[in-house]
Amino acid sequence: MGEAPPPHGHRLSSPVKGARSQARLHPLTDKAANHRLQAYETAVKSSFDRILPVLHDLAGLQRDKGFIGKAQALAEQTLGFRLPDHLLNDAWIKGLDLPRLHAACLFETYGRMADGFFAHDPLKGHDTREFDTFLQSCGFHLMDVTPCADGRLAHTISYVLRLPFGAVRRRSFAGALFDVEDTVSKWVEVEHARYRAGVPNTADAPTRYLKTVVYHFSSRNPAHEGCAAHGSDDDAAARAGLERLRAFRQAVENGFCCGASVALLLIGLDTDTDALRIHVPDAQGHTDLQRSLDTGHIYHQTLSMTPEAARRHILEQVRRQAPATPDEGMVTLIARLVENNLSQLDYVVRRHDGTYPDQGHAERFIGVGIGFEEIQLRNLTFFAYLHTVEEGAADLDVGCRILGGLNHPHGLPIPVVIRFDYHGQVPGARERAIARCQQVDRAVTERYAPLIRDGLLHRLLVVRDCDTRGGLERVATSTDPSGRGGH
Amino acid sequence: MGEAPPPHGHRLSSPVKGARSQARLHPLTDKAANHRLQAYETAVKSSFDRILPVLHDLAGLQRDKGFIGKAQALAEQTLGFRLPDHLLNDAWIKGLDLPRLHAACLFETYGRMADGFFAHDPLKGHDTREFDTFLQSCGFHLMDVTPCADGRLAHTISYVLRLPFGAVRRRSFAGALFDVEDTVSKWVEVEHARYRAGVPNTADAPTRYLKTVVYHFSSRNPAHEGCAAHGSDDDAAARAGLERLRAFRQAVENGFCCGASVALLLIGLDTDTDALRIHVPDAQGHTDLQRSLDTGHIYHQTLSMTPEAARRHILEQVRRQAPATPDEGMVTLIARLVENNLSQLDYVVRRHDGTYPDQGHAERFIGVGIGFEEIQLRNLTFFAYLHTVEEGAADLDVGCRILGGLNHPHGLPIPVVIRFDYHGQVPGARERAIARCQQVDRAVTERYAPLIRDGLLHRLLVVRDCDTRGGLERVATSTDPSGRGGH
Ligand SMILES: [Zn+2]
Ligand SMILES: [Zn+2]
Ligand SMILES: [Zn+2]
Ligand SMILES: [Zn+2]
Repeated sequence: MGEAPPPHGHRLSSPVKGARSQARLHPLTDKAANHRLQAYETAVKSSFDRILPVLHDLAGLQRDKGFIGKAQALAEQTLGFRLPDHLLNDAWIKGLDLPRLHAACLFETYGRMADGFFAHDPLKGHDTREFDTFLQSCGFHLMDVTPCADGRLAHTISYVLRLPFGAVRRRSFAGALFDVEDTVSKWVEVEHARYRAGVPNTADAPTRYLKTVVYHFSSRNPAHEGCAAHGSDDDAAARAGLERLRAFRQAVENGFCCGASVALLLIGLDTDTDALRIHVPDAQGHTDLQRSLDTGHIYHQTLSMTPEAARRHILEQVRRQAPATPDEGMVTLIARLVENNLSQLDYVVRRHDGTYPDQGHAERFIGVGIGFEEIQLRNLTFFAYLHTVEEGAADLDVGCRILGGLNHPHGLPIPVVIRFDYHGQVPGARERAIARCQQVDRAVTERYAPLIRDGLLHRLLVVRDCDTRGGLERVATSTDPSGRGGH
Repeated sequence: MGEAPPPHGHRLSSPVKGARSQARLHPLTDKAANHRLQAYETAVKSSFDRILPVLHDLAGLQRDKGFIGKAQALAEQTLGFRLPDHLLNDAWIKGLDLPRLHAACLFETYGRMADGFFAHDPLKGHDTREFDTFLQSCGFHLMDVTPCADGRLAHTISYVLRLPFGAVRRRSFAGALFDVEDTVSKWVEVEHARYRAGVPNTADAPTRYLKTVVYHFSSRNPAHEGCAAHGSDDDAAARAGLERLRAFRQAVENGFCCGASVALLLIGLDTDTDALRIHVPDAQGHTDLQRSLDTGHIYHQTLSMTPEAARRHILEQVRRQAPATPDEGMVTLIARLVENNLSQLDYVVRRHDGTYPDQGHAERFIGVGIGFEEIQLRNLTFFAYLHTVEEGAADLDVGCRILGGLNHPHGLPIPVVIRFDYHGQVPGARERAIARCQQVDRAVTERYAPLIRDGLLHRLLVVRDCDTRGGLERVATSTDPSGRGGH
């Protein structure tokens, strides 16, 4: 095995830059929120970043007398948990299986991070009342957002848009190409709750379901670091997003009576700076791909204004960007999103001198299945939302290519978390979620047999009851002695 | 290739038995319906039965002068369609590829049968008004039936229960083990239509969604010809069906407020005689697996009665079989099902001397995907309802084992129809249905590669707009010159 690979520089959480941290903040920036978000991001990312140095130290110690005791002490002290004994016991004779140990540490770190997230709500994502009320006052009863599945958009809800994740439906898909039929089903479910239970409001309230697509591009390296699903062509990404949004609206309008309709919103995200390109629709629901509001411009235009003047300016700019007379509720909502995003622009400036050091991919693992509400940080996870590998193979292949490219040169495996959430109130749902994990694990095992044989892809299988605030239930992992996942 | 295989005796439509056809009919038997149903069954099954004799004749002619002309004349005259030229052209040198020709003929026969079904509604399955009204008068707004996917239950709605198929939701699954989550979604969709559009009735009408499971058993050969998914153990089949029904009810009760609930009905079917074993629930929704009503007994008890007396007797018997006081609407509905089934018992008596000659499997093809409303005949199709082979592999393997067992000894291939219905009013839905066919075809091609290489499994890919009364759209077939399915 030789020497353990060096830590990946580009994945280390960058320290706060001294010079810029003194720079003036935007008058609308929420300093307390930035502080809280930064504390959380630093804590989580550094818990992942600590794994490699520990493994490096273990590699040096592995033939020492009393290795197991030293190793466990080091792990407990640095990582906060003990390592699986079976991965240490035979090190004196076989050498440490560092790739497997890496996967085991990563899965444990992920599990602890997820459990902490559900136990403590560090992003206050369940404080949804204020936003729910505001959203309804704008004329919408649910905001359903599809960002691209790219890890650089995983923080879209909690960081970029600064919305409580508990109030927003997020479904990430490669290229932001969401499933129309699935979204119509969700629309029906939401309408039904309004009719039956008056949740979130009664069906006679004149509010609409708001479907939002967030495509992405790279201002620094547009030709290479844009959306891979659209060949790094931001026009194509925007066009495809709008087309999918319109298909959804037409499906609802054609399929249901009494003037059923939905509202649509298309947003672009610059993954280098987290600035937004918002395509403001008009009151007729028309969106113009050529017109958009750039929150980076707004930031500079309003930097020296009073908060009140800045807010007035934002409202004006939003209204001006609509292709025709805009809907006032939509204007109010977008103005809020713009203001929220200004805090994020300062966050990126303060933390990273205005642009991320990890312009490209730097995900720590692939998340496969349905769930992952706890993933609210940038570049932590590549999502492959799927029920079967057969349907999701293309996304999964992209994820393996990305993580393989990041990890394999260093001899590290691709970590894959297979996860299915279930509704505990439905009898048998837990068992079916477990069976689903095992089905996907079997299919992954078949598809990536050579990688798995060489120890270059490891899996953790987890399920979670999403009707509770509980954490993850661990089903199986390929780092266990049997070496097999869930079968 | 040698001699063409002889026709399968057990698959031939049996001629009407002279002796029994004169026997007395039950006073409640609907003679006109029996006549119509028999004409349809005979016409469809004989169109399939004609294929093998024609191929046998072609095999004898294949090196004759003017073979192609003779072959086409024979096919047109006997089967009603011309054969694909590319399968005849090189016969003089390569010999006929009879397995491929068999698949091509079967797919063409199936396609014509399906198109005729949608064009002419031979079973009057769209005359739903009377039954809808009756069902609501019994306290139910939708009857959703899950029979086992076994081909011997494919005629459950139109023949065994004599219900208009357009008024009933049918979802077949191996072992009748329906998907709870999918059924809850359907329940929500139905409730939403009641709230929004007052269809089929308004949400304040005190009616319920009725979920029915039809398990099966064999009175003649209980240990071998029962439900394969439950090891031919009818107690296990009944128990599993009831368990799944209760899980569905609990999912609705737990997941939705305001006393949301559903009605449940468990029915057993004797696949030798089409007699029913109905487990009458009581008004509290309790079903007793040990108590049931046998329509075969009812038939004999009421054979000499007047229609009025027979109907009274049926009502009494239904009430007596409930474990406690029954729900009167449920009693009325079950009495109707019993009466309907008496016609089917006479149908089986008259056509087959009271018991089917094909007690076991005799399906002509496997139907894979979502759709197949046109399949209303016994032992024509083995269903594998699925979105992906990954999820449905177990069912599909069973189907291939059954069809392989029937066909391979004769050198004939397994015909697989891959089919996805779509809602034409949803933009892009047709393209997605086609892509879905191709995805499943790719997975089938991978899973059964050796069979396909040896020409022992052929596929037809079709889609259909289920918002219209139109027929099938043919996407691709492996019998085409390229020899590939949809990719
Ligand atoms: Zn992307
Ligand atoms: Zn309406
Ligand atoms: Zn069965
Ligand atoms: Zn309620």
